[in-house]
Amino acid sequence: MKQKKFILADSEIPRAWFNIQAVMPNKPLPILNPATREVLTQEDLYPIFCEECARQELDQTNEWIPIPEAVREQYAAYRCTPLVRAYELEAALGTPAHIYFKNESVSPAGSHKLNSALAQAYYAKHQGITNITTETGAGQWGGALSYAAKKFGIDCAVYMVKASYNQKPYRRSIMQTFGAAITPSPSMSTRAGKDILTETPNDQGSLGCAISEAIELALSTPNCKYTLGSVLNHVCLHQTVIGLEAEKQMALTGEYPDIVIACFGGGSNFSGIAYPFMRHNILEGKKTRFIAAEPSACPKLTRGVFEYDFGDEAGLTPLLPMFTIGHSFKPATIHAGGLRYHGAGVIMSQLMRDGYMEAQDFTQTETFKAGVLFAQTEGIIPAPESCHAIACTIREAMKCKETGEKKTILFNLSGHGFVDMSAYEQYLSGEMRDYVVSDEDLKFFRKSADMLNR
Amino acid sequence: MKQKKFILADSEIPRAWFNIQAVMPNKPLPILNPATREVLTQEDLYPIFCEECARQELDQTNEWIPIPEAVREQYAAYRCTPLVRAYELEAALGTPAHIYFKNESVSPAGSHKLNSALAQAYYAKHQGITNITTETGAGQWGGALSYAAKKFGIDCAVYMVKASYNQKPYRRSIMQTFGAAITPSPSMSTRAGKDILTETPNDQGSLGCAISEAIELALSTPNCKYTLGSVLNHVCLHQTVIGLEAEKQMALTGEYPDIVIACFGGGSNFSGIAYPFMRHNILEGKKTRFIAAEPSACPKLTRGVFEYDFGDEAGLTPLLPMFTIGHSFKPATIHAGGLRYHGAGVIMSQLMRDGYMEAQDFTQTETFKAGVLFAQTEGIIPAPESCHAIACTIREAMKCKETGEKKTILFNLSGHGFVDMSAYEQYLSGEMRDYVVSDEDLKFFRKSADMLNR
Repeated sequence: MKQKKFILADSEIPRAWFNIQAVMPNKPLPILNPATREVLTQEDLYPIFCEECARQELDQTNEWIPIPEAVREQYAAYRCTPLVRAYELEAALGTPAHIYFKNESVSPAGSHKLNSALAQAYYAKHQGITNITTETGAGQWGGALSYAAKKFGIDCAVYMVKASYNQKPYRRSIMQTFGAAITPSPSMSTRAGKDILTETPNDQGSLGCAISEAIELALSTPNCKYTLGSVLNHVCLHQTVIGLEAEKQMALTGEYPDIVIACFGGGSNFSGIAYPFMRHNILEGKKTRFIAAEPSACPKLTRGVFEYDFGDEAGLTPLLPMFTIGHSFKPATIHAGGLRYHGAGVIMSQLMRDGYMEAQDFTQTETFKAGVLFAQTEGIIPAPESCHAIACTIREAMKCKETGEKKTILFNLSGHGFVDMSAYEQYLSGEMRDYVVSDEDLKFFRKSADMLNR
Repeated sequence: MKQKKFILADSEIPRAWFNIQAVMPNKPLPILNPATREVLTQEDLYPIFCEECARQELDQTNEWIPIPEAVREQYAAYRCTPLVRAYELEAALGTPAHIYFKNESVSPAGSHKLNSALAQAYYAKHQGITNITTETGAGQWGGALSYAAKKFGIDCAVYMVKASYNQKPYRRSIMQTFGAAITPSPSMSTRAGKDILTETPNDQGSLGCAISEAIELALSTPNCKYTLGSVLNHVCLHQTVIGLEAEKQMALTGEYPDIVIACFGGGSNFSGIAYPFMRHNILEGKKTRFIAAEPSACPKLTRGVFEYDFGDEAGLTPLLPMFTIGHSFKPATIHAGGLRYHGAGVIMSQLMRDGYMEAQDFTQTETFKAGVLFAQTEGIIPAPESCHAIACTIREAMKCKETGEKKTILFNLSGHGFVDMSAYEQYLSGEMRDYVVSDEDLKFFRKSADMLNR
């Protein structure tokens, strides 16, 4: 029998996260105070984030950041996650490529998001924080944080993008089962939400707006900090456990990836699977390709520009140097709610400029077609976000079929789709629509970022 | 760091199923032809079941049945499943007991059901069958069979209990994603369904009725066989991979279970975890206790009688010697749809008579309370069925707390609850009702079985 799963014992859970900032040839540009345009310091971040997270955010020196034992113990509930050879998908495609995937869907919250949620909840508890707040799009991050907060005995309040709140009641119930309080965003509980609802009463929300609301609550509540599930450097740092494990597991297969693929919202699961392998590109001249798979409905990497922009819709965050389609961008309500974010993380944006990574975009139906094939071959119904990684993998594997190249492709299965079945129902009934941003819209929304860079 | 998960490599997937019939001190009573009261032969089962399944059903000789390599290869998509030490649940309970669970929720269909579905689909394919049909309650079996049929290239038609069809649209979509055709039962597509709908137009269905419909379709369709997800001997046989793996994994922990617990519908997941350990009770005089956890709304083991009864509502099946509350029993629409079956499998019924196992019943709210605690401590949202096993585990662990005994408890986490979140929502909002069968109802429905035994 061919070996299908490459597994590691609990004792192999990584002891340190990999901080790619320490080895980048060109460090990311600094984060700026929007009012003064001065470079932001660690201390400037303290009102919003835990101190250790703020420290990690700006750490461009230490290549390895130790993982606290208490976090490793919580990781053990689901880590190390399996690395799986997708023999059946390969056979269905008739490709000579070898396809592997890292299965992050086995986490309690159903996605990779927990890797950072546990770290952030731990640091909050450690600092004496009693309340944490956040936003969630598809609900994956919210579910992860709800669970992580419960594990470390902290109260958790989540602003959930209204489109997802209504589309995905099961995600909401998951968060409530883990003990969190959930509010649909935009809401009347913050100034940011009120402003939007006053202008557009039926606004279906966006990650940017939900971020604004969560930050506002954190700033106005004693002993409360904000947490973010993607984009930021410390979040991406925590996700590197994915790639660090995958590195060991690929060694067990006797192969090394020619291509590494992940879907791309703010960049956290991409970072997680990519950075540990990219390290060898940077330090040893390996030639692995890294591909970010993004929705055609929110094409920040394939059609955005590199500029300073706000991280949120209301303009409450510092200015981030990133690929963006403008912080006021209104994405279509595609099912991959977690990919509806206007910008890419600061590190990924620099890596993109420096040619270490590339991006491809996919329409919604192409990704669900890939997801159904994956479900029928490999037995896991993927989250709509993860379907993008699968669609990209299939695209690359079919190129191998044309050329006869026997490439090794590794992708990150960031989460399962058990709570996204209404999206599959829509796809299977032929009622799914595609959304591709028009050039006019792109030009219009980009203005919001362009103005900041004059 | 304490070791939390005990995992086995793909190569450790069992090579044979354990057939408890071969070692039972008292063999199960024979299955009878309802018309003639003659003992049923293997050949009598051929019109309905695959030949190899029929052979396994009546095999009281061979202790080990080899698992076909093609089935082992499909098992490798999710097996061996993890054995997990529930440290956090233990801590929350403050019990001296050591609690372990076998995590069958990691299977593609989200439950243990796939263990038999893959075997049955394989044997069907092997025999040249092109269509298989079945019933499903909660949707776990239907999801498993849909996926298994797809893997072996067979068409699959599923009758889904109407109550579940409406309560659990996500389950329905999962089956459709795997490529199966789904019909709510009772339906107008069979005589059995028509009869019921004519009498009770708003009938919400039952497993018994859905079985009748699926068998009728199999009998009336060329090259089509029926498959069952529980109750029958060959189904329970296939599930023994659970306990066989758990046995190896418990050896890794250095402990041996004092108590083994599983929820109980028809008995398949119970058999799976229990038989391999029970083997040592039978052959070596070990004293492990085996507890079946059933709903108070369907108490066949705790309040039923041992009698010959039909396996289905319409009376199409052979007569089975079993603990039953009557084949015409109408269970309340509890969320644990998979436990709404009127009888226990033939083997379990004999083991129950012989004192090898015991049973306890649980109200719905007690099981969801247990499920929420489990989700918040161990990070897995359990299926409503599995919540019964957890409630039973908690009950036994709390007894240990009272007595100070440090017992080792092993339970089977048969499936996850990601597609049962509406049930959790109902529980969390305080709107969940409990159902306990009244003595009058019990007496009334039992008549349908009593009549057959005069």
